[in-house]
Amino acid sequence: MKIEIFDTTLRDGAQGEGIQFSLIDKLDIVRALDNLGVRYIEAGNPGSNPKDLAFFEQAGHMALKHARLAAFGATRRRDVTAEEDLNCRSLLAAETPCAVIFGKAWDLHVTEVLRAGLDENLAMITDTLRFFKDRGKEVIFDAEHFFDGYKRNPAYALDVLKAARAGGADCLVLCDTNGGCFPDEIYDITKAVTERFKTRIGIHCHNDCGSAAANSVMAVKAGALHVQGTCTGFGERCGNAALSTVIPGLQLKLGYDCIPHIAQITETARIISEIANLAPDNSAPFVGVSAFAHKAGMHIDGVSKSAESFEHIPPESVGNKRRFLTSEISGRGAILPVLRRLMPGLDKDSPEAADVTALLKQLEFEGYQFESAEASFELVVRKRLGLSRTFFDLEHYHILNDQDTTCSAIVKVSVDGSEEISAAEGDGPVNAMDRALRRALEGFYPSLKKMRLTDFKVRVLESRDATAAKVRVLIQSTDGADVWTTIGVSTNIIHASWKALTDSIEYKLLKERQEPCRATRGQAPEPPTVTV
Amino acid sequence: MKIEIFDTTLRDGAQGEGIQFSLIDKLDIVRALDNLGVRYIEAGNPGSNPKDLAFFEQAGHMALKHARLAAFGATRRRDVTAEEDLNCRSLLAAETPCAVIFGKAWDLHVTEVLRAGLDENLAMITDTLRFFKDRGKEVIFDAEHFFDGYKRNPAYALDVLKAARAGGADCLVLCDTNGGCFPDEIYDITKAVTERFKTRIGIHCHNDCGSAAANSVMAVKAGALHVQGTCTGFGERCGNAALSTVIPGLQLKLGYDCIPHIAQITETARIISEIANLAPDNSAPFVGVSAFAHKAGMHIDGVSKSAESFEHIPPESVGNKRRFLTSEISGRGAILPVLRRLMPGLDKDSPEAADVTALLKQLEFEGYQFESAEASFELVVRKRLGLSRTFFDLEHYHILNDQDTTCSAIVKVSVDGSEEISAAEGDGPVNAMDRALRRALEGFYPSLKKMRLTDFKVRVLESRDATAAKVRVLIQSTDGADVWTTIGVSTNIIHASWKALTDSIEYKLLKERQEPCRATRGQAPEPPTVTV
Repeated sequence: MKIEIFDTTLRDGAQGEGIQFSLIDKLDIVRALDNLGVRYIEAGNPGSNPKDLAFFEQAGHMALKHARLAAFGATRRRDVTAEEDLNCRSLLAAETPCAVIFGKAWDLHVTEVLRAGLDENLAMITDTLRFFKDRGKEVIFDAEHFFDGYKRNPAYALDVLKAARAGGADCLVLCDTNGGCFPDEIYDITKAVTERFKTRIGIHCHNDCGSAAANSVMAVKAGALHVQGTCTGFGERCGNAALSTVIPGLQLKLGYDCIPHIAQITETARIISEIANLAPDNSAPFVGVSAFAHKAGMHIDGVSKSAESFEHIPPESVGNKRRFLTSEISGRGAILPVLRRLMPGLDKDSPEAADVTALLKQLEFEGYQFESAEASFELVVRKRLGLSRTFFDLEHYHILNDQDTTCSAIVKVSVDGSEEISAAEGDGPVNAMDRALRRALEGFYPSLKKMRLTDFKVRVLESRDATAAKVRVLIQSTDGADVWTTIGVSTNIIHASWKALTDSIEYKLLKERQEPCRATRGQAPEPPTVTV
Repeated sequence: MKIEIFDTTLRDGAQGEGIQFSLIDKLDIVRALDNLGVRYIEAGNPGSNPKDLAFFEQAGHMALKHARLAAFGATRRRDVTAEEDLNCRSLLAAETPCAVIFGKAWDLHVTEVLRAGLDENLAMITDTLRFFKDRGKEVIFDAEHFFDGYKRNPAYALDVLKAARAGGADCLVLCDTNGGCFPDEIYDITKAVTERFKTRIGIHCHNDCGSAAANSVMAVKAGALHVQGTCTGFGERCGNAALSTVIPGLQLKLGYDCIPHIAQITETARIISEIANLAPDNSAPFVGVSAFAHKAGMHIDGVSKSAESFEHIPPESVGNKRRFLTSEISGRGAILPVLRRLMPGLDKDSPEAADVTALLKQLEFEGYQFESAEASFELVVRKRLGLSRTFFDLEHYHILNDQDTTCSAIVKVSVDGSEEISAAEGDGPVNAMDRALRRALEGFYPSLKKMRLTDFKVRVLESRDATAAKVRVLIQSTDGADVWTTIGVSTNIIHASWKALTDSIEYKLLKERQEPCRATRGQAPEPPTVTV
């Protein structure tokens, strides 16, 4: 049976603590979710956040393969028509094919929070939905606090759904807004609704009891055909139902049809965490790096004899992989595709594979993480295989910074014996180094003029040794055609940035001499130059 | 109804990736769990880990108020008696009041992994349990893979429980070892068992489908009286059922009697995370720092009018607290509690509230984000209200960095007209500035010696103006008693770090002059010093 997947990372997810997306972040997430194959992407609330309108304007030009964009907003205020309501007008201005309208389904909220009459609330719902239906939108109704409302006043909660149906709702979504329900309650109440309404029923769960994923599955078992959540579980308070948990459960274990590209779900979840600049949750079901990591000797022995003895699904089915935490075998599988591209014919047991695996383990131990820095990874492998070349040598660099925001860099390089020294100012040390280095190299390599840094991410690595905390810098670059990411690790943020910066330039020069070369993330956006 | 809580952080939890406990760590965790009031603490597997014996020897001398210690081990090998079996003898040597014996309940495991006969396995179970019962132990039987086994061969899975009962088991624990079950399956199968057996039934769930907590609750609803899990959810692969999620659900929402000191559960979970040297999960249900953190303006407005509108339980009931995050999607409601604390009597419509709200919006427009930087937020508000004081003035600072990883800083400050210049080296610019600044100030303010930076986060902000991309730095600090976070924003990462750094010092000095002052997060850990 087909289940519609609705991702709200960009709206409800952005309500999670510490989460803030830039315009480019948002476009990247839309692309990742579309590649995964979700049906709906709820991408903002233009009424409460005017910046979202700028996003929708750009997103409207994207060619999406699977997803429809949705914008979110409240029912009209009680004292104006939908046509007059500013929020409704902002939502319309987003020009998305789908509008999501939320309305109150718990009488307490109507009287105490909204301070409206119960019948008045029903009219606000019907009117608002009708307003958007009349303008050709697909309309999804989010019945906020539906389960809490149903528990206190089932008749009124059902009246709310009827009001939405009267307004022309295409889908009625039952929300456990406070996340306080257990699976049996969700099942029973959803069942009562699906037996009574012919309109498509959806589910939207929060994780305040740690049951969001289980509750979403139980709602589908009770007849819901539309599931809302966020890919990684981001969201207000304890988060929303994690679609990276719900989808594999429904599709791989229960036989529902949710998305076309489920084997990309691990990668998608990790991309979204990276964009949010949060460490991915290692123990996340299905997609976490530890989800199929076996540590106990008995488990490793069991899995070696029979995979299903300690794995409830095959890790490859979600694009994840099995890891034996005490073993040397892990990693080699991931390296092989790159090795084979650079040296066709190499196999898993070749000395080169073993050698690169050992090097990779050493670098990972030092804090490198190549999952999001494939350009640096390729450079490392090339160097080890003797397939790299040197484009320049660093003689020295110096950074000078005082309490102004301006920073100065001096860089001296040599190219085939010719020395060049150059200085530049920048808005920060990375910007100054980047300018000085490119100024020194552009005479030798004019194509570097086309290249720009577009993103810069920093994470401090946890360390048991109090004196050795390290910092990992990821730099994303573009030349207008491709986008690639490089990495540097050091105890000194400037030094780590320098490494990532030189890798980026080296990759660019190598790339144009050895096309085709792969980029790390889809299409190049039109990004700002990074000045840090 | 009384539910026995069984914590296995020290055994199954230690099988989680990246988790390793020293002997002292283990004793500390036993103490924390005993203070919380759990009934059983499973603390090791002496047969597979000989170091556990040293722990049990020491732990045996602890005076525990609530908990009984349990040691874990397998059934005897098929070719020896329990008396001859080395694992059984190690388990006995642990001298715990309670022995937990696991046996295979899935026929596939018996034949494929254990490579024993089906009847032989039953005899191994009965014999082993009898061996420990005869020696005066309370014996808990963990029926490994019970649910997977029951789904394939229910008769055999039940025979396994009967064999355990015949051996004298005090409790029969049904394990979802692979974590692959959904709540309805757990409920139905547990119900079938509790209807058939008079012996106490327990539940042990793993989180591979994201359902471990929900599944544990459903098993209790089906009649289980004993719940196994780990306080923070640590465990093999995706972890075990998090007792910090399960217990509040059972006790506060469903009326079961699990532990005497539930208001300590937030602190206990954070202590265990700290001991494991892992950042606590901010979005953990009930106990996470974000569990009652409200960000959307509508939610803040709702909670201010009626707490239950967006909180499914009162945060204090689990020792947690409500937080209003100050962000662009929140409104004036979030600011009011801080204003009121600093100037009692201020209301939402006062000119001060309007003025601070306007300032906040301006700063957020510039890239500040105060939701995770409550210390800087308080400083901003104090300055605007004329409630701040100046502890030092910056004359100038200079940063020098070359291609070494070492960085140098010179800082000159004045305090009440006295000037002080000082220099320091560091592993990176932040570390060098921090050292130089504190060296310059410590003569004036000796308490700064106790203060350390513990975390450092950087985010590059996107901007429509390509030449003005900004960077946001968050710095977390501790003085051993409190933990607080400050923020700096600039186009230059060094300058942004400098702002966050000086805010942190200013907050520390202000805090000790105006106790009580709030910290952003409960207890201070023993964290690594940040060197970036």
